[in-house]
Amino acid sequence: MNLALERLAARLKQEKLDCLIVSLPANITYLTGCLSRDSYLLFSGNKNTYFTDFRYIEEAKKNLQHLAQVRRINGSVFKLIAASLKGMGVKRAGFEERHLSFAEHKKLRQETPKGISLLPICGLIEDLRQIKSEAELEKIRQAAEITCAALRFIRKFISPGKREIEVAAELERFIRYHGAAGNSFDTIVAAGENSSFPHHITSQRKIKENEPVLIDIGVNYCGYKSDLTRVFFLGKITSAFKRSYDSVLKAQQRALKAIRPGVPIKRVDRAARQYIARSGFGRFFGHGLGHGIGLEVHEGPSISPKNKHNLCEGMVFTVEPAVYLPGRFGVRLEDMVLVTKEGVEVLSDNLDKSA
Amino acid sequence: MNLALERLAARLKQEKLDCLIVSLPANITYLTGCLSRDSYLLFSGNKNTYFTDFRYIEEAKKNLQHLAQVRRINGSVFKLIAASLKGMGVKRAGFEERHLSFAEHKKLRQETPKGISLLPICGLIEDLRQIKSEAELEKIRQAAEITCAALRFIRKFISPGKREIEVAAELERFIRYHGAAGNSFDTIVAAGENSSFPHHITSQRKIKENEPVLIDIGVNYCGYKSDLTRVFFLGKITSAFKRSYDSVLKAQQRALKAIRPGVPIKRVDRAARQYIARSGFGRFFGHGLGHGIGLEVHEGPSISPKNKHNLCEGMVFTVEPAVYLPGRFGVRLEDMVLVTKEGVEVLSDNLDKSA
Repeated sequence: MNLALERLAARLKQEKLDCLIVSLPANITYLTGCLSRDSYLLFSGNKNTYFTDFRYIEEAKKNLQHLAQVRRINGSVFKLIAASLKGMGVKRAGFEERHLSFAEHKKLRQETPKGISLLPICGLIEDLRQIKSEAELEKIRQAAEITCAALRFIRKFISPGKREIEVAAELERFIRYHGAAGNSFDTIVAAGENSSFPHHITSQRKIKENEPVLIDIGVNYCGYKSDLTRVFFLGKITSAFKRSYDSVLKAQQRALKAIRPGVPIKRVDRAARQYIARSGFGRFFGHGLGHGIGLEVHEGPSISPKNKHNLCEGMVFTVEPAVYLPGRFGVRLEDMVLVTKEGVEVLSDNLDKSA
Repeated sequence: MNLALERLAARLKQEKLDCLIVSLPANITYLTGCLSRDSYLLFSGNKNTYFTDFRYIEEAKKNLQHLAQVRRINGSVFKLIAASLKGMGVKRAGFEERHLSFAEHKKLRQETPKGISLLPICGLIEDLRQIKSEAELEKIRQAAEITCAALRFIRKFISPGKREIEVAAELERFIRYHGAAGNSFDTIVAAGENSSFPHHITSQRKIKENEPVLIDIGVNYCGYKSDLTRVFFLGKITSAFKRSYDSVLKAQQRALKAIRPGVPIKRVDRAARQYIARSGFGRFFGHGLGHGIGLEVHEGPSISPKNKHNLCEGMVFTVEPAVYLPGRFGVRLEDMVLVTKEGVEVLSDNLDKSA
């Protein structure tokens, strides 16, 4: 049994659960090491069952039989799961309350014998996933490295007259030629005033002289994700842009300096937020400072004023302070970091930060 | 009020609902004409409210204020929704049971005053979406056309020695230069034995001489999706491949012939399935014949033996019979069709079907 499975088995005991119905694909991948879609893992520690349909059954049989019995879904998966729960003599079964819809839970409840309790579970596997293993870090480093290379490449490609979508097209092609399976979210290319929308939808707009171009891109490498943002300015940088850019850049440096094991997460957010506020841009930075990243682009820990936990060694997250000036432009600098024993390692450190 | 909103208002009356909490992004886009992410629409017909966060608030204010009051989420969206329900004097509020998680429903229930009934609703907007308007068809046609062009282009690009992922890279680039916002799902490029997995994950494998390459690609054009599959054979076609290919091709022709308004959907599936079975490949075709397509890649109607409904004019779906021979190869031919008054229009008709 791998370490992730061992840890989960121990957590189930703590929660007095006989088993857990895992429905979030990223959680199944974390436990099994295999990519998973539209499938379910019934995990009990000693006897596990993987439910998948015709499309994935051949791959599952090849890759998963050492970990779980593989069963084909042909009709209602909840009928199958309920029958397994009964067959195993389960009394208390957990389910992932954020990853089962109201309708799915209703079906599961209808199929499950009355004597079996179905208990909503939140974040059990997600908490384990916050601390990355060496094997995971290797993949995340590779994802970050491909993304850095893509941003270095695209900097030379960007010029006035090119369309946002054409820039995205070249990025999408580049990452696949450099080892990525694909993108981890819709690539954002936002020119001029479009950069003032935090999540602009890449458009047909042409890039002009003397304006910024914001690029936010992530790749998928063996299931692990990256997420980096840079802003390039075409032509002579205006003083208004420089003021915002300097504020964001220095805010990021403050945040990076604050990162080490044991530090309250909200203190990292505050380090950046206070600096931006003091530069006079406080009301133009409306989102959290960052988010954990790994098998999902957005996972724990959330780097925000509301997070009450402390940093731990092995956490990986983004640090992305920003300033959005409506109707004018936006600046966001996003890097990926690892919390080390000594402090912080910036995983995207070989990518420069000049606009 | 547009036609979609009018129809929904009428359906709410039939269901004796005072309002509906819409949480599926595609449903919100259908009703508002705007792309939507992580947002909620409280629809009552005469008074609608759109809840979104910092990231999308500027766009929402610009595009949605003629349809709905726009409110910024800053904390719990369910608290806001519950307060609106109370403020509107609602007695019966529907929610989308397939698009609200168990945990989200729990929060909504906790925030909502006891006197307000929350009623699980299934497929109400999805049913309306099955019949496409002319404006929708225009976008779907364009999505299909870009995809056909991409497949014609890639046919010339494919040659022995190229990697699956490189073929995907060129496709991804091509579609963006030809008007697509991006892909609608991970592009599948499956060479040789990889084509026997219905949903192969595009890999680093090199294409060899004398083997098939299966390509399944879809694009996103103004929110509307396409989904087409072709199989190209490199070199001299083997007799085993030819037998499978002919079976799939003729099965598809049988299905297309069966399509016209009023025909039971399962009869269309059966037309193809029977032909494949008679060719001796019955047990190698394990999925449904097709799926509706529009704002989502997979939506209603499902073209399967289980669907008890009849075809209606204005439905758009895929027709994708297949034969998968484990360890050897797979053949799938996927086109997109529109049910017309007279019968059927193949939306991907200008793409030839020779292997």
